Amino acid sequence: MFPFSYPADDRWLLPEGIEELLPEEAERLELLRRRVLDRFAAWGYRLVMPPLIEFIDSLLTGAGHDLDIQTFKLIDQASGRLLGIRADMTPQVARIDARTHAGDTPGRFCYLGSVLHTQADRLEKSRSPIQFGAELYGHSGRASDLEIIRLMLEVLTTAGVERIHLDLGHVGIFRGLARQAGLTGEQEGELFSLLQQKARPELTAAVASLDIDPPLARMFTELVDLNGRHGVMERARECLSEANAAVHMALEELAVLAERLGDCCPEVPVNFDLAELRGYRYQTGVVFAAFVPGYGREIARGGRYDDIGKVFGRARPATGFSADLKVVLRLSGLGESFVGSGEAIFAPAVSDPALIAAIRELRDAGRIVIEALPGQQGDAAAHGFRSELRRNGERWCVCPVASKDT
Amino acid sequence: MFPFSYPADDRWLLPEGIEELLPEEAERLELLRRRVLDRFAAWGYRLVMPPLIEFIDSLLTGAGHDLDIQTFKLIDQASGRLLGIRADMTPQVARIDARTHAGDTPGRFCYLGSVLHTQADRLEKSRSPIQFGAELYGHSGRASDLEIIRLMLEVLTTAGVERIHLDLGHVGIFRGLARQAGLTGEQEGELFSLLQQKARPELTAAVASLDIDPPLARMFTELVDLNGRHGVMERARECLSEANAAVHMALEELAVLAERLGDCCPEVPVNFDLAELRGYRYQTGVVFAAFVPGYGREIARGGRYDDIGKVFGRARPATGFSADLKVVLRLSGLGESFVGSGEAIFAPAVSDPALIAAIRELRDAGRIVIEALPGQQGDAAAHGFRSELRRNGERWCVCPVASKDT
Repeated sequence: MFPFSYPADDRWLLPEGIEELLPEEAERLELLRRRVLDRFAAWGYRLVMPPLIEFIDSLLTGAGHDLDIQTFKLIDQASGRLLGIRADMTPQVARIDARTHAGDTPGRFCYLGSVLHTQADRLEKSRSPIQFGAELYGHSGRASDLEIIRLMLEVLTTAGVERIHLDLGHVGIFRGLARQAGLTGEQEGELFSLLQQKARPELTAAVASLDIDPPLARMFTELVDLNGRHGVMERARECLSEANAAVHMALEELAVLAERLGDCCPEVPVNFDLAELRGYRYQTGVVFAAFVPGYGREIARGGRYDDIGKVFGRARPATGFSADLKVVLRLSGLGESFVGSGEAIFAPAVSDPALIAAIRELRDAGRIVIEALPGQQGDAAAHGFRSELRRNGERWCVCPVASKDT
Repeated sequence: MFPFSYPADDRWLLPEGIEELLPEEAERLELLRRRVLDRFAAWGYRLVMPPLIEFIDSLLTGAGHDLDIQTFKLIDQASGRLLGIRADMTPQVARIDARTHAGDTPGRFCYLGSVLHTQADRLEKSRSPIQFGAELYGHSGRASDLEIIRLMLEVLTTAGVERIHLDLGHVGIFRGLARQAGLTGEQEGELFSLLQQKARPELTAAVASLDIDPPLARMFTELVDLNGRHGVMERARECLSEANAAVHMALEELAVLAERLGDCCPEVPVNFDLAELRGYRYQTGVVFAAFVPGYGREIARGGRYDDIGKVFGRARPATGFSADLKVVLRLSGLGESFVGSGEAIFAPAVSDPALIAAIRELRDAGRIVIEALPGQQGDAAAHGFRSELRRNGERWCVCPVASKDT
């Protein structure tokens, strides 16, 4: 009945990686949006709507080079200053917590909105995700990491994503080893990069060239293999036995968190990956990501990034997660949309107050009523409607539309 | 319990006219958003989500100079081409109808999203409205204007706006007179501008200088006075009796529309203003606006702009309206938000599967449950909660929190 699609070779194409949603998709996305926000609200996460653009120093504070490259810049004619279109809402929410949340109580915030990237993502080919997420400020224990992970899992499930499994890591392990080895920032960056590529031979060579103690050198290279489902923590404790206290604390945090997750969410498989360091530059503790089979990358990710609000005047412990609602839409098993239940009802082009009242009543009850326009070709059946409003004495009733064949 | 506000002289201020919504406002806005979209859906208007940025020629096609000035521009690094941040979603929706809506059936679309303006609006001081609206393509009769006006009134009412009155005009009147007088584009522009300022003496002088027939000259100047609630149409027919057929057709269209509106929406006062020509450059027929007492400008506006889709390859009759959800939020009498009913319930930091199950059940039922975090200072009463989960034998129950005074 509503066949929306672009003609081939459309010269009114959108820029690369900039998508728009036509009705079917938009209406399904709206339902997911509501489910996600309702679930956040039920957990006590307060909705904020940060602006699409702000001064570049607010947007990029503490965020690092990658986000800078990804951020569209423009000049504010009103102030002459440089603005950016947000490429990530996390720093915006950190600013809101730091600047507006009075008191020392935990601050729970959620958000959902468009972000733009200058460069398309390799897997999604998109430059316009709809980012959503939740942040919990003011608590540094593992209970808040656990709350955020449980919330992420529940929100994804509510949005119709199935068969989620979880990756857990901890940036404190690599960071602790780097401190113990007394690496310079540059050396740390090089090892970090090789570790991310899981490039074992290159990593071994790089470590060897650094002139660090053999036990430490071994620990760096063995990090690459410390991933998998079972027995990883035991192997890690063994491999990293000569590491410093910070590394052992990180391992312990991770082990306890995994155990608690097993209690709360026994249905979610947990995978450890001690070399996975997503967002290493600003993360400070546990890092995690959600995956589903058949999708070649995480669908949601997060972790601890204490002190993110420091530059905004208030250092607080912080943990959170984020995801792209467009990706979730594609992976969601939910077929329905936010639009009221039942098929649309056709109303004839008749000027009658009783008809207007009947239409209003149906719409108030969540039904869809489409009014005929005078001169419109074809009747209800020709337009594919299966029910229509017909006069029955004084009243108007919803009746089935007689099929053309009968 | 949640006192969100910025400190005085906040150095992390946002750019002028760029607002963000903190929880109380954001949560009320989300409710309005849902009400508006639900109402559109009940009328059969299909939701589309056009992109925030597109190629500038798509965004500005047929839109005129004003929108060009208002549009933030940026260079697409991927294509080297100029992009714009949308300042108005109407051309985007016209593109969607022209490019994707197959067949000759009426196309009904609705939208809701952020737009950005380079220059702040004088009244609102805002550069970041949340625009929403509906468009009806493919029908040129007054029935579609009537449908759009009724929809606008119902959507605003649903969003809690009260005491709405309506202004009606028709660009065909001034345009018909201009054709009849054989004005050049420049002359027409000058008279248009004086008419908009309701500058009667200047208008009289300008008309006199144009060397047009005295009866026509008189009609131009008398347009200024053709506004008000009652008797305007009678006066107009008299004043404009010597005008051409196009002017008479426009008057007739307006009169019939007003009569039908009186039948459908007798509670809405209608004001005529034949010199009001909002969006004259692209409007082609009836123009209308909704007002409320105490707000110095229209809160929603629209009209007919046939052929808007022509540049996109498909000229169709079109009529629609749009408004700013932030303005509606401010004027709405609705106090509630989208967040589940009832006050938040406090849950203790206890590791117990039965507690987790109880929390989940309450949240699924739309209640808000906030979990205590270990080490958090103060009990439920200290944090201002009025109910909490307490263990009662095997089960967890919601109990009132004992007040500190008792």
